[in-house]
Amino acid sequence: MKVNQLGEFNLIKLLATTLDKNFKSVNDFDDVYKLLVGIGDDAAVWEGPAGRMVFTSDSLVNNVHFDFLYINPNDLGWKAIVASQSDIAAMGFSPLFATISLGLTGDETVDTVKSIYEGIAEACSEFGGKIVGGDTVKSETLFISVSMIGCHPSDTCKTDPLNRESAKVGDLIAVTGNLGSSAGGLRVLIGGEKQTPRNKSLIEAHKRPIPQIQTGLWLATHGVSCSTDISDGLIDDLGRICRASNVGARIRIDNIPVSKDLKAVFPSDWIKLSLSGGEDYQLVFTGSDEIISMAIDSLETPITVIGEITKDYPDIKILNSKGIEETSPVKGFDHFTNI
Amino acid sequence: MKVNQLGEFNLIKLLATTLDKNFKSVNDFDDVYKLLVGIGDDAAVWEGPAGRMVFTSDSLVNNVHFDFLYINPNDLGWKAIVASQSDIAAMGFSPLFATISLGLTGDETVDTVKSIYEGIAEACSEFGGKIVGGDTVKSETLFISVSMIGCHPSDTCKTDPLNRESAKVGDLIAVTGNLGSSAGGLRVLIGGEKQTPRNKSLIEAHKRPIPQIQTGLWLATHGVSCSTDISDGLIDDLGRICRASNVGARIRIDNIPVSKDLKAVFPSDWIKLSLSGGEDYQLVFTGSDEIISMAIDSLETPITVIGEITKDYPDIKILNSKGIEETSPVKGFDHFTNI
Repeated sequence: MKVNQLGEFNLIKLLATTLDKNFKSVNDFDDVYKLLVGIGDDAAVWEGPAGRMVFTSDSLVNNVHFDFLYINPNDLGWKAIVASQSDIAAMGFSPLFATISLGLTGDETVDTVKSIYEGIAEACSEFGGKIVGGDTVKSETLFISVSMIGCHPSDTCKTDPLNRESAKVGDLIAVTGNLGSSAGGLRVLIGGEKQTPRNKSLIEAHKRPIPQIQTGLWLATHGVSCSTDISDGLIDDLGRICRASNVGARIRIDNIPVSKDLKAVFPSDWIKLSLSGGEDYQLVFTGSDEIISMAIDSLETPITVIGEITKDYPDIKILNSKGIEETSPVKGFDHFTNI
Repeated sequence: MKVNQLGEFNLIKLLATTLDKNFKSVNDFDDVYKLLVGIGDDAAVWEGPAGRMVFTSDSLVNNVHFDFLYINPNDLGWKAIVASQSDIAAMGFSPLFATISLGLTGDETVDTVKSIYEGIAEACSEFGGKIVGGDTVKSETLFISVSMIGCHPSDTCKTDPLNRESAKVGDLIAVTGNLGSSAGGLRVLIGGEKQTPRNKSLIEAHKRPIPQIQTGLWLATHGVSCSTDISDGLIDDLGRICRASNVGARIRIDNIPVSKDLKAVFPSDWIKLSLSGGEDYQLVFTGSDEIISMAIDSLETPITVIGEITKDYPDIKILNSKGIEETSPVKGFDHFTNI
């Protein structure tokens, strides 16, 4: 069987099982550095002698995750870093150090590579993390792999990492910011449309996403335990929470936070974009009515309740304005719920 | 100008400068996690609240670093991990946790990928480090990026990392094990030769290299300060020490440790292979007569003195049996000394 036929979810499961079966620890310091979260969440977390740390890796590959027709090298560098910063945020930590493995064909101009690294430095300067090393290799396909370590900014303590597996039936489901803007921006760029006052914010959201570091830290230290970042789209990422927590979800289309610009530019497609569009790097999290209310009151970033956790594992039901279960908006996205 | 024209050394310099110029720390915990070694050594090192840690990344790319004609997936997984373990060893640390970013075309068989991960788990089980996460992405070119964190195994203390910049004029230069075996093994495989009792050890050295973890730990805790691993060949890696330390080197061909098998299988080429062959993952280090003697007496792995550090920055002089400076064996490897 080929990898293509297996699918991503089964592949990751196979890799994790293979490692488990064939690995035996030889470290004599397993008691000193205890692994709390391993393969299968946004990032790994361990507890060391002076607190907890987090470790994540993300790769962007040319013609798969990006296309220089629609993104400039500077924004690409920014996005490569934000993808990892967002994973760190989704665990409730702050970025500390990162390495970059850069695969180059050799045909890139020096200016292109310099520009990628300017974007990398800019995202680190905005949201934290310092590049401390890496590897530059020749490759037929350009790729950027970022590995990032995170820590707690002030306390060297026991704050539990946010996870995907603690959603409870009855929990409210909330998200930060607006959804679908990045996917909308990409669609504008692919369509070759000129920038207008209306679509400008969408293009910006696509090119320069913002990781929710402060929100993640707040959630982890104020009683929220279940969260993930929306990198692959709401249905996909909420689906991961449902599967990890053995629960289902019900969300209301009317409640999904969407920018006016997205509705104006894509009057017939904004629902689809907001449910399945990736790379918004907002957080989706669950919690009691009380905790979510406190988050809404305390956080600077807008928080919107979009539904609740149900016992219908692993189904995500989508209700329209009339409260009727809607199936059409997620048609074509079944591969998200099936994996 | 294109990256190809710039060369690897200048590229890395440009990337480090670009990051430096455009980066401003926003972390409010720079006092808590102090960076001791950044870009430009085998790995980065920082000092945190409970000691020092090390962080490195290495990528292997299909048709650049390996070719499935000459390596099976299981050995590839092993080698991907050993490359990072060896960087950790070269800093005097022990492997702790690692992530894998795997780029797959999708056309690989599931068995191939499973076999890669078995090799990964085997190397971790032998030499330490646990895979705690990563990323699986589609890519037109298969690649494996490993990022690894290391720590000190018992002391959470102040052991200084081994570095490349502290070689002193008059220091002896020593290496672990034998050199050139891995390159010899690759040449046997490319030549399509059958395995014989003679070439078997070379093939094995190429397929299943061994990182010098225990030796690195010993060196760091017994007064050696300057070391790097031989991943790209002795002349190349010793050249890095010379440039970082502003010194030169003189080595004697007769002293280079080479296996009997390498001499027997490559009677006219063993010198070239031992000076420039990569992927042996032995350590080259420098130190006083006294320290090197102690290393020879104390360490299980064979240690050989091959020459001494000179003031002729950044030249590496190679002396033949008669003590005459030899130029021919390193011809064709000028790109190593010029970078």
